[in-house]
Amino acid sequence: MRILVLGGDGYLGWPTVMHFAAKGHDVMAVDNYQRRQIALETDSEALIPTPNLDERAQVFYQQTGKKVEIKIGDCADMLFLNTVVKDFQPEAIVHYAEQPSAPYSMKGFHEAQMTLQNNLGVTFNTIWSVLENCPDCHIVKLGTMGEYGTPNIDIEEGWIDIEHNGRTQKFLYPRQAGSLYHTTKVLDTDLLWFYVRTYGLRVTDLMQGPVYGLSTEESQLSDDLLPNFHYDDIFGTVVNRFLVQAIAGVPLTVYGKGGQTRGYLNLMDTLNCVELAATNPANKGELRIFNQFTEQFTVNELADRVHRVGNSMGLDVKIKNIENPRKEMEEHYYNAKHHGLIELGLEPHFMTDDVLAAMIEKILKYKDKIATRKIMPRVKWS
Amino acid sequence: MRILVLGGDGYLGWPTVMHFAAKGHDVMAVDNYQRRQIALETDSEALIPTPNLDERAQVFYQQTGKKVEIKIGDCADMLFLNTVVKDFQPEAIVHYAEQPSAPYSMKGFHEAQMTLQNNLGVTFNTIWSVLENCPDCHIVKLGTMGEYGTPNIDIEEGWIDIEHNGRTQKFLYPRQAGSLYHTTKVLDTDLLWFYVRTYGLRVTDLMQGPVYGLSTEESQLSDDLLPNFHYDDIFGTVVNRFLVQAIAGVPLTVYGKGGQTRGYLNLMDTLNCVELAATNPANKGELRIFNQFTEQFTVNELADRVHRVGNSMGLDVKIKNIENPRKEMEEHYYNAKHHGLIELGLEPHFMTDDVLAAMIEKILKYKDKIATRKIMPRVKWS
Repeated sequence: MRILVLGGDGYLGWPTVMHFAAKGHDVMAVDNYQRRQIALETDSEALIPTPNLDERAQVFYQQTGKKVEIKIGDCADMLFLNTVVKDFQPEAIVHYAEQPSAPYSMKGFHEAQMTLQNNLGVTFNTIWSVLENCPDCHIVKLGTMGEYGTPNIDIEEGWIDIEHNGRTQKFLYPRQAGSLYHTTKVLDTDLLWFYVRTYGLRVTDLMQGPVYGLSTEESQLSDDLLPNFHYDDIFGTVVNRFLVQAIAGVPLTVYGKGGQTRGYLNLMDTLNCVELAATNPANKGELRIFNQFTEQFTVNELADRVHRVGNSMGLDVKIKNIENPRKEMEEHYYNAKHHGLIELGLEPHFMTDDVLAAMIEKILKYKDKIATRKIMPRVKWS
Repeated sequence: MRILVLGGDGYLGWPTVMHFAAKGHDVMAVDNYQRRQIALETDSEALIPTPNLDERAQVFYQQTGKKVEIKIGDCADMLFLNTVVKDFQPEAIVHYAEQPSAPYSMKGFHEAQMTLQNNLGVTFNTIWSVLENCPDCHIVKLGTMGEYGTPNIDIEEGWIDIEHNGRTQKFLYPRQAGSLYHTTKVLDTDLLWFYVRTYGLRVTDLMQGPVYGLSTEESQLSDDLLPNFHYDDIFGTVVNRFLVQAIAGVPLTVYGKGGQTRGYLNLMDTLNCVELAATNPANKGELRIFNQFTEQFTVNELADRVHRVGNSMGLDVKIKNIENPRKEMEEHYYNAKHHGLIELGLEPHFMTDDVLAAMIEKILKYKDKIATRKIMPRVKWS
C-alpha cells in the first residue's frame, strides 16, 4: 500500500514509518519538526538525541535496504499538504500531525491558540486534500481515550445507543476531555464525523491511551532509529517519566491521590493497531472508532510496579504524592471497552516486570543525559 | 449593564443593540462587515439597503436620544478583541460574530475554511479575552438548534442524563449537525464547555431555531433602522424567503418532500430571549443551555401558511417541491423541549396570519428591489 504518515518525526510517527516500510509498503513521512521546536522553547528536549528524518531514513536504508520518502513541511498549510497528497496518491493516511502535549496546550493563550489552530487545521486540510485528490483514501486518525474523560458509566467503543422516553438513537459517545489538547481531539472527531456522513469519506479514529516504550523491531537495529523519548512534564507520558525518575533518583511524582485510571499500551502495540486499521480499511461513509489500549491501571499501580521492578534492579525508587497540576478526578469509575482491535487480530504486549526492566536497562545507558529540572510539573491548569 | 454585542451589524445583532440601548443599557456594537462582504461576493445582498453602523447609530440617537458605541474590527484578531474587552469591561458579551450561512460553508474549501477559522477563532478569543480582562463577565453565545440535527429521540435542553448498564451520567446532549456552519457551532459548544468547567467561566449557550421577521419596536422608528433582510439562498431564512417569493411570484421552493421540522421564532422573541439571558446571568462555572424557539413547523406547513395568507391578500402564491440541495432527512421524528426561556419569563410572539400579513405589507414596499436570480439554491451539499 501507499501510506502517508503525517507527523512522521514523532514518538509514534517514526516507528510507524519504519514498521510499514519494513513490511514492504511504500511510505512517505511528513513533518515540520514542530514538536522539536516546542521542546527547544520549553526546555523539554528528549532524552536520546534523534537525527533528523532525512538522516534517519538513510540509516534505516543502510540497515534494511528499505527506502522511505521524507517531505518536510507544515500540514496546516493546505497548499503544501494538498500537493503532497496529490503527488503521492496515498491509499492510507496515518494522521499523527498534532501538537500532542496537554500541559503545553494549557500554558497560556498562545500555546492554546496554536494547539487549536494546528490540530483542527491539519485535520481539516487532511479531509479536504483527500476529498479533492483521492476520495477513496482511508484516513487513520489518532484520537485519544482522553476524549471521553472519566464518565461514571462504561466507556463504549466510540458510539452509544441511547434509549430515551421510549425511543432509541445511536450517537457518537459523548466526550468531555480534561485539557485543551484533548478537547482539540474531540473537535477533530466531530469534524471527521460531519465530513464522513456528508461526503462518504472512510475514516478510522483510534482512541488511544497513554503509550510507553522505546523499542520496536526496527528501532533495535541502531540507536539512531530510536523514537524520541520524552521524560519531561510537557511531552513525557507517565510510564516513561516514572522509569526515568526511578533511574535519576527522583521520587515518582504521583499527581494527587493517584487513583486516576487510564488504559495503557506498549509502543509496539500502537504500531500493530495502526497497521491493523490501515490494512483493514473502514468502508466508505464509515467513521470506525476503536479504543486503542490493552490494560487499565491507576497511577498508583504504575508507581508501585516501577517501584518494585526498579528496586529489584538495585535502584532506590521512592514514590511521592505531589499537588495535582491538572484538574481531574483522582478517584473515579473507569471501565472502557476495547474489543475492536482484538477482533481484528491484535496480540497485546502487556506491561510485565520484564518489559519494565528492559526499558530501565535501555534508559540506563543515557542516565547522564537526564536533566532532573525537566521532571516536575511546570504548567498548572488553573 | 455594560453589554458588548459582537456581530452588531447582523440580522439579529443590530436589533439586539437597539433593544438593549432602548432599555437603558450601555451598549457597544462590534463588527467587521464580513457578512456584507460575503453578500457582495456571492450576489446575495439584502433586500433593504442598510446604512453602516455609524450611520445607523446616529439615526438611532436622533430618534431616541440613546447613544450606542460602534467599533469596527475583526473579533478573530485577538489583539483587536482583547483591547475592546479590556477597555469596555463588559458585564455581558452577546456573541453573534460568526459566519452564519450553511450554504456558504458548503460551497468549497475556502468558504469552509473561513467559516471554521472565523467561528471557532472568535469564540476562542472571546473566551480568552474574558478570562484575561473580566472573568466575571457573562458570555451569551448564539448556538443553533441545528447542532442537534434530527435525532430519533426527544431533544432535551442542552443536556441529557444517560443511564447505561445500571449507572448514570449527565452529558452534553449529543450533537450532529447538517452543515459545516452548524458543525462549527457544535465545536463552539464543546470549546465553551471545556473552558467553563476548567476555569469557571459563566456562559449561556442559546440553541436558536430559524428566525423570521423584520420589525422590532426600535426598527419601526425609521426604515434606516431595519435589520438586514435576506431572501437569497445564502443568508435568507426560510420564512423570510417564502414571503419574498410570494410577493415576487416565484413558487415557494420547498426543498425535497418538505417534511423537515424545525423550531421557529419571531425576531422580537430573539431580542427578548437574549435580554432574559443577559439580565439573568449563568452562575460561575455553569454552561447554561436554552433551546430558543417558540413553535415547531414542517416546511410544508410554512409553505401552506404563506400560501394561504398571500392569496388572501391578492397575491398569486404557488408551491413547488424542488430537488433538495442539502443532505438532510425530509421526514423524521422531531420533538424538542424548550422550557427554560419560558420559565425566565418569555412571552412568545407566535406566527399568526396577522404577523405574516404585516411582514408581507412591509416587504411589498420593496417589491421592485427583489432579484429573483438570488432565490434558487446555488450551493449543493454533494
